[in-house]
Amino acid sequence: MSESPEFTLSKSRFEAFSDGVFAIAITLLVLEVHLPALHAPPISGAEQLRALLQIWPQYLVYFASFATIGIMWLNHHALFRYIERITHGIVLTNLLLLALISFLPFPTEVLARFGLTPMAMVYYGVTLSAIALGYFLVHRQVLAAQPSVDQSLKLWNIVGLTLYPVATIVGYFVPVVGIVLVGLLAVFYMMPQNIRGAVVRP
Amino acid sequence: MSESPEFTLSKSRFEAFSDGVFAIAITLLVLEVHLPALHAPPISGAEQLRALLQIWPQYLVYFASFATIGIMWLNHHALFRYIERITHGIVLTNLLLLALISFLPFPTEVLARFGLTPMAMVYYGVTLSAIALGYFLVHRQVLAAQPSVDQSLKLWNIVGLTLYPVATIVGYFVPVVGIVLVGLLAVFYMMPQNIRGAVVRP
Amino acid sequence: MSESPEFTLSKSRFEAFSDGVFAIAITLLVLEVHLPALHAPPISGAEQLRALLQIWPQYLVYFASFATIGIMWLNHHALFRYIERITHGIVLTNLLLLALISFLPFPTEVLARFGLTPMAMVYYGVTLSAIALGYFLVHRQVLAAQPSVDQSLKLWNIVGLTLYPVATIVGYFVPVVGIVLVGLLAVFYMMPQNIRGAVVRP
Amino acid sequence: MSESPEFTLSKSRFEAFSDGVFAIAITLLVLEVHLPALHAPPISGAEQLRALLQIWPQYLVYFASFATIGIMWLNHHALFRYIERITHGIVLTNLLLLALISFLPFPTEVLARFGLTPMAMVYYGVTLSAIALGYFLVHRQVLAAQPSVDQSLKLWNIVGLTLYPVATIVGYFVPVVGIVLVGLLAVFYMMPQNIRGAVVRP
Repeated sequence: MSESPEFTLSKSRFEAFSDGVFAIAITLLVLEVHLPALHAPPISGAEQLRALLQIWPQYLVYFASFATIGIMWLNHHALFRYIERITHGIVLTNLLLLALISFLPFPTEVLARFGLTPMAMVYYGVTLSAIALGYFLVHRQVLAAQPSVDQSLKLWNIVGLTLYPVATIVGYFVPVVGIVLVGLLAVFYMMPQNIRGAVVRP
Repeated sequence: MSESPEFTLSKSRFEAFSDGVFAIAITLLVLEVHLPALHAPPISGAEQLRALLQIWPQYLVYFASFATIGIMWLNHHALFRYIERITHGIVLTNLLLLALISFLPFPTEVLARFGLTPMAMVYYGVTLSAIALGYFLVHRQVLAAQPSVDQSLKLWNIVGLTLYPVATIVGYFVPVVGIVLVGLLAVFYMMPQNIRGAVVRP
Repeated sequence: MSESPEFTLSKSRFEAFSDGVFAIAITLLVLEVHLPALHAPPISGAEQLRALLQIWPQYLVYFASFATIGIMWLNHHALFRYIERITHGIVLTNLLLLALISFLPFPTEVLARFGLTPMAMVYYGVTLSAIALGYFLVHRQVLAAQPSVDQSLKLWNIVGLTLYPVATIVGYFVPVVGIVLVGLLAVFYMMPQNIRGAVVRP
Repeated sequence: MSESPEFTLSKSRFEAFSDGVFAIAITLLVLEVHLPALHAPPISGAEQLRALLQIWPQYLVYFASFATIGIMWLNHHALFRYIERITHGIVLTNLLLLALISFLPFPTEVLARFGLTPMAMVYYGVTLSAIALGYFLVHRQVLAAQPSVDQSLKLWNIVGLTLYPVATIVGYFVPVVGIVLVGLLAVFYMMPQNIRGAVVRP
């Protein structure tokens, strides 16, 4: 036993479990989209339409969160493609990352409760920044386990670690601009070179 | 690296992730089925029965949505059967399609809140139409990546892109007919030739 | 194309999708366990304890439903073990079965709302009876596709098709006995010979 | 048939189903994190901040539960690594364990409703103790099926079976210390030797 001090989790089950959490977290997002409390049920069609339209910040956050988790999954997949062994450090940082990603539906509920307020945007932005930090920690553990991994991921990390806090601060002063920044960041990550750039090659 | 400009996501993980989202979205539908707000808890058995029966539109929408996602999954599976590589365009349009399908529990909640009103039906119909559009976009990307794919899928797309908007408009004027149309569309898609017709052969 | 009139869904993805729905439905059950509405939040420890204990019917239903879905999954797995092709009829009846199983969290919510009333028990019993019927329909399609499959499954079906309606009727008159019957049925199904008896051998 | 009296569930589907339930249960935890009921919606930013901060016990419980399920999954995986056949006893005790783990979101809801009261902590602690007991029962069945399995798992079990009840009792008198103990237990389990120690070797 002494010749194998590292934890020996099989890579395929590690990936399957992570994929499962990503897929579930992304699908649960919708459960925290909510209509505002309305007065007596028999309300007019115009009032119903207004209720459905006035929750547009929730729609925006739904799609921004969906895109963020989707992109995170793509890059997670790319990061682990050429990894050969799952170390103890990878397991723990990955668990932290999954805990943060699974938490994303709650800021959506906060937004549904408070409306598009500075505080709701800051809460959302802090969660996204924490996710970027969690991804950075996983990446560091991967580099430690396999130094040959493409260093260009660092750029991707720097962008996330910098721009999510910026969007948070901006969102505190002008909430709607904060959401738009988060959406633009997702679009940026979706551009081919940023996904391909994340593909790890030995 | 230059000889492979496309994103190189493995097909099996792409399918596993998509399957996961389909399976979760279909199972979450029930969470937005709700009883109406009732008066004081100790209500009579007859009132309980009435409460359980009067939400019949929610039952209908539950089964129509379940059938729609199920059929969508079958056709998604058929579409990717003979695909050999997952392009960047497929990844992005597929993410959009999954986001729209995952959104389906919310129109059910809207219906639970508003009852079977014109506005609730339009909201549901617009979501279904957006899903048909999302599927069409994925299909186009698949054709671009692999032109040998069976073109007969186009018929399937045209039916969806046409009849969901029609059901939406009809539902605005006579909500119950709108739901029935959506259900009939699901039944139509379930007929063997429509599923088999969607099976892609090289 | 004419030599293969049957739908050609791959068995492994069919099973993976079904397994996913089973696993999700079983895990969602807890989301409809709810505390009763309480008066003002600062309530005494004794009142909190009473609130946690008085929902014992929900605990019972949670474990009975969990056992029911678990057993259903085991038998589903056994049923498809020696199946070689997935026909169109299997796909459709299986989708119906999954829709009914996914619906199980809702009767739990009904019970949480109404308490252990005759109507809540009937609603739960009718759902379980519908699931037994759905399983019977899937089984018939499997037999049609592969007549060599062990006929002894019929006994299992007859028990379910008979005793769930009986538990429903009994539950209408004495709700608590209805729940106990459902629990006993799950225990009966869990006995080795009833699971092994369901294992299909060629 | 008589030469194979044991239930013959394939190990891969048994593991896939268990993994699915673990992944879903861990991701559902966030759905029971809730803001307290607030007065009229237009509340000040300071009140919003206070509302978000005053639910810190829910954050703690979220991360403690996430870590507990994550660790449980790791050890479950290790336990079954060298198992060759799934016996009837393993299937049933495993189903019980999964039912208890899936139940974990509910104590979080209790805490959200009652606040950090002695009763809420006891409820959470009893659930965790029941999970430790469930894991112990699965382990005993595994040992019965495969006596060569590493006996050192027993230490791990003893720690869980002892310290969760202790945390429960402490939590009754000083709730916050109870949560901290649960968190420390998760940290203890996460230390490399405790995960590696759980890896079963033939």
